[in-house]
Amino acid sequence: MLKGVLNYAHYLLEESVNKGETVIDATCGNGNDTLFLSDLVGQDGHVLAFDVQELAITSTREVIIKHGKSNVSLIHDSHANIKQHLPKDERQTIGGAIFNLGYLPKSDKKIITKPESTIKAMDDILEVLKKNGLIILVVYHGHEGGKEEKEAILKHVLHLSQQKYSVLQYGFINQKNNPPFIIAIQKNKQ
Amino acid sequence: MLKGVLNYAHYLLEESVNKGETVIDATCGNGNDTLFLSDLVGQDGHVLAFDVQELAITSTREVIIKHGKSNVSLIHDSHANIKQHLPKDERQTIGGAIFNLGYLPKSDKKIITKPESTIKAMDDILEVLKKNGLIILVVYHGHEGGKEEKEAILKHVLHLSQQKYSVLQYGFINQKNNPPFIIAIQKNKQ
Repeated sequence: MLKGVLNYAHYLLEESVNKGETVIDATCGNGNDTLFLSDLVGQDGHVLAFDVQELAITSTREVIIKHGKSNVSLIHDSHANIKQHLPKDERQTIGGAIFNLGYLPKSDKKIITKPESTIKAMDDILEVLKKNGLIILVVYHGHEGGKEEKEAILKHVLHLSQQKYSVLQYGFINQKNNPPFIIAIQKNKQ
Repeated sequence: MLKGVLNYAHYLLEESVNKGETVIDATCGNGNDTLFLSDLVGQDGHVLAFDVQELAITSTREVIIKHGKSNVSLIHDSHANIKQHLPKDERQTIGGAIFNLGYLPKSDKKIITKPESTIKAMDDILEVLKKNGLIILVVYHGHEGGKEEKEAILKHVLHLSQQKYSVLQYGFINQKNNPPFIIAIQKNKQ
């Protein structure tokens, strides 16, 4: 069976993230991906979970408390400022990252991720990403402003150096209502 | 590591084809996919390998003889006529199929697959494909005529019913020189 988009996002992270690594949930939203990443890196790992919205931080806090997770740092800030919160030790790399682009489900649809901050966060993470590590973008684009963000993100990643990065697009193309698709950026060995 | 396009095509077939099934190589070319499918379905399975070019049939025959394969039928005909060569028993389904769209490597670049025959072959195979089975198209489109075929095929598959089929596109989008990408069509359970 072909994997659905969300399953495929998790599959790619399972294949590339190791126990004990530090990883990033750039848009923690309802906390599902944060919990997934927490399990993936295990007790010796660390999840940095960002969201600009108070509601997302509260929801994610509930999820991690409910599951007794002690390896998550919740950061109530835009992912545009991600660099300030990254490990100061330059030798420490990031094992992987995930972004859900769009709005917070069951919340104000006018509060959406913006291409400028998303691109800045991506570029900052790429600098510290481990070799063969992945940044996964799950691109929701059916909402107002979604098309513009999708186009800006695609334009940006299309021009990433093919020597340095492999940029994969994965999505179902015969579905109605603008279903989400995945962009996965791999930092190549050089 | 993200799987390259050809590896991913084989991975999808490995995940969906079972031993003993009948499968189709719609464009046997140099015989690589035919050999792969022959291994995949095993001695009790059957590979129907088509090509309109004599050279492709000869090359593939050499490959299967070299590897001692007895489960391959080579059919020197356009895949547009695929229906004539399918099993007559209506209960017998096809386990999967692969197409390489473009020209035969190391051969006349003017002899290329054409969208009309490719679409006819796809539609004929979809009728007899097993539930959850896949047709994989590896779309080479950098040659003369390639862009037109790519666009015609995409237009066709975009309109396949999303209840009946899931159409996945998988490809690297930051590479130069029009690299091939994959379209995978899954026949959904209904």
